[in-house]
Amino acid sequence: MLEELKRKVYKANLDLVKHGLVIFTWGNVSGINREKGLVVIKPSGVSYDEMSASDMVIVDLFTGNVVEGDLNPSSDTPTHLELYRNFTKIGGIVHTHSTYATAWSQAGCCIPNIGTTHADYFHDAIPCTEDMVKKQMDEYELNTGVVIVDKFKKEHIDYQHTPGVLVKNHGPFTWGKSPDNAVYNAVVMEQVAKMAFISFNINPQTTMNPLLIEKHFNRKHGPNAYYGQENK
Amino acid sequence: MLEELKRKVYKANLDLVKHGLVIFTWGNVSGINREKGLVVIKPSGVSYDEMSASDMVIVDLFTGNVVEGDLNPSSDTPTHLELYRNFTKIGGIVHTHSTYATAWSQAGCCIPNIGTTHADYFHDAIPCTEDMVKKQMDEYELNTGVVIVDKFKKEHIDYQHTPGVLVKNHGPFTWGKSPDNAVYNAVVMEQVAKMAFISFNINPQTTMNPLLIEKHFNRKHGPNAYYGQENK
Amino acid sequence: MLEELKRKVYKANLDLVKHGLVIFTWGNVSGINREKGLVVIKPSGVSYDEMSASDMVIVDLFTGNVVEGDLNPSSDTPTHLELYRNFTKIGGIVHTHSTYATAWSQAGCCIPNIGTTHADYFHDAIPCTEDMVKKQMDEYELNTGVVIVDKFKKEHIDYQHTPGVLVKNHGPFTWGKSPDNAVYNAVVMEQVAKMAFISFNINPQTTMNPLLIEKHFNRKHGPNAYYGQENK
Amino acid sequence: MLEELKRKVYKANLDLVKHGLVIFTWGNVSGINREKGLVVIKPSGVSYDEMSASDMVIVDLFTGNVVEGDLNPSSDTPTHLELYRNFTKIGGIVHTHSTYATAWSQAGCCIPNIGTTHADYFHDAIPCTEDMVKKQMDEYELNTGVVIVDKFKKEHIDYQHTPGVLVKNHGPFTWGKSPDNAVYNAVVMEQVAKMAFISFNINPQTTMNPLLIEKHFNRKHGPNAYYGQENK
Repeated sequence: MLEELKRKVYKANLDLVKHGLVIFTWGNVSGINREKGLVVIKPSGVSYDEMSASDMVIVDLFTGNVVEGDLNPSSDTPTHLELYRNFTKIGGIVHTHSTYATAWSQAGCCIPNIGTTHADYFHDAIPCTEDMVKKQMDEYELNTGVVIVDKFKKEHIDYQHTPGVLVKNHGPFTWGKSPDNAVYNAVVMEQVAKMAFISFNINPQTTMNPLLIEKHFNRKHGPNAYYGQENK
Repeated sequence: MLEELKRKVYKANLDLVKHGLVIFTWGNVSGINREKGLVVIKPSGVSYDEMSASDMVIVDLFTGNVVEGDLNPSSDTPTHLELYRNFTKIGGIVHTHSTYATAWSQAGCCIPNIGTTHADYFHDAIPCTEDMVKKQMDEYELNTGVVIVDKFKKEHIDYQHTPGVLVKNHGPFTWGKSPDNAVYNAVVMEQVAKMAFISFNINPQTTMNPLLIEKHFNRKHGPNAYYGQENK
Repeated sequence: MLEELKRKVYKANLDLVKHGLVIFTWGNVSGINREKGLVVIKPSGVSYDEMSASDMVIVDLFTGNVVEGDLNPSSDTPTHLELYRNFTKIGGIVHTHSTYATAWSQAGCCIPNIGTTHADYFHDAIPCTEDMVKKQMDEYELNTGVVIVDKFKKEHIDYQHTPGVLVKNHGPFTWGKSPDNAVYNAVVMEQVAKMAFISFNINPQTTMNPLLIEKHFNRKHGPNAYYGQENK
Repeated sequence: MLEELKRKVYKANLDLVKHGLVIFTWGNVSGINREKGLVVIKPSGVSYDEMSASDMVIVDLFTGNVVEGDLNPSSDTPTHLELYRNFTKIGGIVHTHSTYATAWSQAGCCIPNIGTTHADYFHDAIPCTEDMVKKQMDEYELNTGVVIVDKFKKEHIDYQHTPGVLVKNHGPFTWGKSPDNAVYNAVVMEQVAKMAFISFNINPQTTMNPLLIEKHFNRKHGPNAYYGQENK
């Protein structure tokens, strides 16, 4: 069942290791089949080098129940499901504890958009969620999704144009059209987080001209995008 | 004698290199057989790539005498023994000069708990020991163990919930159920030390909600832990 | 056509990966044949490991039209061409988003010359361009070249003695006698950018004696240069 | 002639690459045969992967003349010779532009002794030389040696107990009993420089108890040294 998606999700999980975003079991990727309402996700606490595509777990988008698989799904599954239910055009989600993005999360600060590397993939500052309140701790993973969605709604951030977030005191989530695209965005966010850290050390007052943000974002994502070979 | 433990301690020492925690001979791992009151530890000043499992040295937990082995045990052996005698439920100890944990030690500062990566493995701030006084210098390695134990007692820190410490102006020690688990905690501490350094650079005032610390620590270590496959 | 130059430009692009200056498709190298008025450049958005020398695109130095090649040239091509038209003695150009040089670009600061590593290859501070004004956004890539050339003219910087620049909020460009030499200068700039970041953290007031700058620069590039084997 | 020493110097030069201390041709190692008054050193500007042991150049300790070899010796040769003539018990010298040690040099600051990793190999703060005056620029490389020796004499630093220095705005030199030992000290200095940078970022006021410095230094180098296997 969903063999192709399992294979993609499996490969995307291994790519987290390849790109240096995770150690041990500290990250997970999922993918969704929207027609069937099913999500494929990494099993919880299993090493990347000990798992195979067939270990990926299938869960129901709405109930969260395991539909197929012998292992427990990632403990972060309720977060993934809440994001899929609200961000209805995304196809894959990544969670890691990558060094610099996690450090910004721990600092409780959004990553301001100060460079074209950022603007090429994330239109706005990468937001950082608010503190959870006590009653949200019970269903912690579900509410991690809730505070993410709240942040995007409250601040009118387009989740397709800014495909990632920092969960305060925790770490980054990114998403994309596919599991693979979500991994790509996770790599970009880590690099952007590292460069912003250095830039603000050099010049705490640094900013970027909003015109330049529009220019770079649209060069890749606007109606007249001209980067790459797709307009050939 | 203790061939299985020697093999585990040997492998754990090599894992320090694999995880990038040591260069040259700058680290050591030990393991204990509590029934026999014997500790297996790396020999002093021997390169990781020149030693074999049979070079591991066996010392007596209480006298510190070498029970088996042709080489001198690690010069840090008295520290390990003092920890084993006082932290009676641990099975392995690691000492390294890993970059970021050592830098925090040199700074003489504890690592505050500001993220879930930290809270997943260390309940409290990772403490930093006090300065030794002059008379403690004579039995320096023994007293390194003494000041560690003192710190945990004086501040009522549970050594099983916070399995590591920074020795002021020196470097980190970690421990765990086994030599392997102690190495795991050494890797976590180094990553936590690096991310905390970055976070405090970004926001010197950053803190973490204590509720979130409890949630994350218990998710992995509490009576109703649900991370991983053990509750399957 | 221009097979030898294509091969050199192709290899120089792969060297960006080898030296850790780029991830994904985030960089490009070009080379010029001045006699024919033709520039060879990387195709846009193509992975380094999927391309071959024959994928390099040939464009006209003055019109920017594609003269040979099935793929779109790098979207940064108009910047390269503007630099070749104004810096008439250079043979190759590199653009990357390398971490530390990009971070200085984002900070909007030039990299002061505070060490002999810098002075060995870049005579002056590595300049950072001014903000573009609104009307320059339309032909963004062309005008990136324009603001670079303006900076060098306005501040009387010799582009052969200081073979690189930071484009504000964007990233570095370097150049040299050949594509290969431009890559060499890109590696130097990244290392110089990293070390300057650390130095200014340690001592924000640090400076370098101008006499030492002259000495080191001339040791390699002056009329009586004595570094290496060329004066043998 | 001096085949064994050439082989050792050659290997030590390659070890600089292996330990990540140099890129391109940015470093050199030499060794001395005191009986014959001859120094073996890397040729100038030659890539590490293109040279062989037979390319090492032999120069006279006192005249600096090339005694054997087809290539120019390192342009830093006069510095090496000045150090060998004044520090009469050393057998090998290393110069690199390693990242963190060079950054401290550029900052013009000595590296204070704030940790046992430092104290295990360098008794004092690692000194930074004074600015050269104008007339010293003519024989720049010779005078680089002169300002190093001056610093050690003026501040009564024992060159055997503190086997390295930062040349202001330039980079580090280390030495030791042999070329190999000098490389070891270069690796230690780079690691110590990195950790000190981080420590002072965390706590600008950090210091170390002088008693602990004595203890650690003597543990490895004092008359009753007990680290390692030599006292077995």
